[in-house]
Amino acid sequence: MKLFRFGEVGKEKPGVLMPDGLKIDVSGFGEDYSEEFFTNHGINRLKDWLQANFAKCPIVPVEARFGVPLYKPSKIICIGLNYRKHALETNAKIPTEPIIFFKSTTALCGANDDLIIPKNSEKTDWEVELAVVIGKKASYVSESEAMDYVLGYALHNDYSERAFQIERGGQWVKGKSCDTFAPLGPFIATKDEIPNPNNLPLWLKVNGKMVQNSNTSDMIFYVPFLVSYISQFMTLLPGDIISTGTPEGVGLGMNPPTYLKAGDIVELGIEGLGTSRQVAKNYK
Amino acid sequence: MKLFRFGEVGKEKPGVLMPDGLKIDVSGFGEDYSEEFFTNHGINRLKDWLQANFAKCPIVPVEARFGVPLYKPSKIICIGLNYRKHALETNAKIPTEPIIFFKSTTALCGANDDLIIPKNSEKTDWEVELAVVIGKKASYVSESEAMDYVLGYALHNDYSERAFQIERGGQWVKGKSCDTFAPLGPFIATKDEIPNPNNLPLWLKVNGKMVQNSNTSDMIFYVPFLVSYISQFMTLLPGDIISTGTPEGVGLGMNPPTYLKAGDIVELGIEGLGTSRQVAKNYK
Repeated sequence: MKLFRFGEVGKEKPGVLMPDGLKIDVSGFGEDYSEEFFTNHGINRLKDWLQANFAKCPIVPVEARFGVPLYKPSKIICIGLNYRKHALETNAKIPTEPIIFFKSTTALCGANDDLIIPKNSEKTDWEVELAVVIGKKASYVSESEAMDYVLGYALHNDYSERAFQIERGGQWVKGKSCDTFAPLGPFIATKDEIPNPNNLPLWLKVNGKMVQNSNTSDMIFYVPFLVSYISQFMTLLPGDIISTGTPEGVGLGMNPPTYLKAGDIVELGIEGLGTSRQVAKNYK
Repeated sequence: MKLFRFGEVGKEKPGVLMPDGLKIDVSGFGEDYSEEFFTNHGINRLKDWLQANFAKCPIVPVEARFGVPLYKPSKIICIGLNYRKHALETNAKIPTEPIIFFKSTTALCGANDDLIIPKNSEKTDWEVELAVVIGKKASYVSESEAMDYVLGYALHNDYSERAFQIERGGQWVKGKSCDTFAPLGPFIATKDEIPNPNNLPLWLKVNGKMVQNSNTSDMIFYVPFLVSYISQFMTLLPGDIISTGTPEGVGLGMNPPTYLKAGDIVELGIEGLGTSRQVAKNYK
């Protein structure tokens, strides 16, 4: 099943993307894609409801905006330097265990919303990433049972202001949390749709030029290990997002480093998880 | 006004602590202390409602558990090394601008709940801190207007697993986010109750022995600057918590370093913000 949300910012409604590409409005089900929805087996209940009510569901207009594909997740956990070639391009050591950092949930936006380059930013960079969405409360979960706690996956662009992240004293969160720095989606695909998350082509273009072009198989730590590992340090809640790191080809790794400016167009995709597109604009 | 929440975990109700120490149940008002409540001028509406309905409000039993004093804040932003003498004791440089890190909101617990020492932890440490609660959505706020965005203050113990934080690869969030690592409260005092947050005695005892005993005046960066500074990097939402750093006297700074073990009793307080008490237990 593919879940999305559509409509104006703050007024999004839930939708389901059908296998034939049809987008249907399931707001008649009466629940949004929230922590409570996932906790209370919402996916299964929605499937049953759809079988009975499909014919009554309105079709979503083609031009409708994609919103964040779930409602207010409690946290976004990101993995740093999780692709071998990306660690090399940034002159970092290959991590011996996952590097974890957070991104503010206020950074979330719709898949095709504009990227707003923050005030005083000169180093806004892109990072195509596979995001994992948690489906069940997870604490001290073993690697072998970790996949039971995964709901599904989504495409994520982990925008990063490199000066804020690296040159402004300490921790990375400062360069990861600006508004619009986390376009997620267009949709969440439940895990049954993605047989192997650890072998997915992913790519990102800037102004039509391919700059990232890799496969999640280059990840140093795979999805089940990451879920298990993070759950040793904190409790994961349904709807929480784990962004699994980016492959080589970011602006920081170029010679000379190259960053986004107003008017630039960023397009990205992951096999089975759709594509997204952001136009960079200056903060006004 | 002093806001608290009481009752079983996950079933807390809102209460108001009256100036004479009486604790009253204001669940009759029909709203919890959530982002929506703060956004929609809940404090003022609750005050008006109380004037008309005070006599009808039940009294909260003395033995009632204090819960987290607000409902699901979107984030906890912590400031690292914000007291001069604490920076010295940890052999760190005095920061030239605030160090920001996040703590998972799943770490929140009631003021007097047990501290659960995480699995595989040998270095669980204490940190008494002044927490600032945001009252109004804040983005790119100037220092001079920052206090308009502050709702109030609370006592916070920013428990920290030093091995997870420092020895496990990279960012600090790993050692800050375990369950029960953020006892907050007992209450939130609205800002009118605390004339100067930058001059408050604060202290922490372990097993009756005073180990932290300082004043928020030793902070390197004061509250208005912190609110303004953080808002340059991310949007603050009503209910968001900024924990402003800890003074000297943490276990990491002792010679030899000293950490918590099951049975230890941690007590802490800040003038005007009450006291809290946690008993350390091992994870089971």
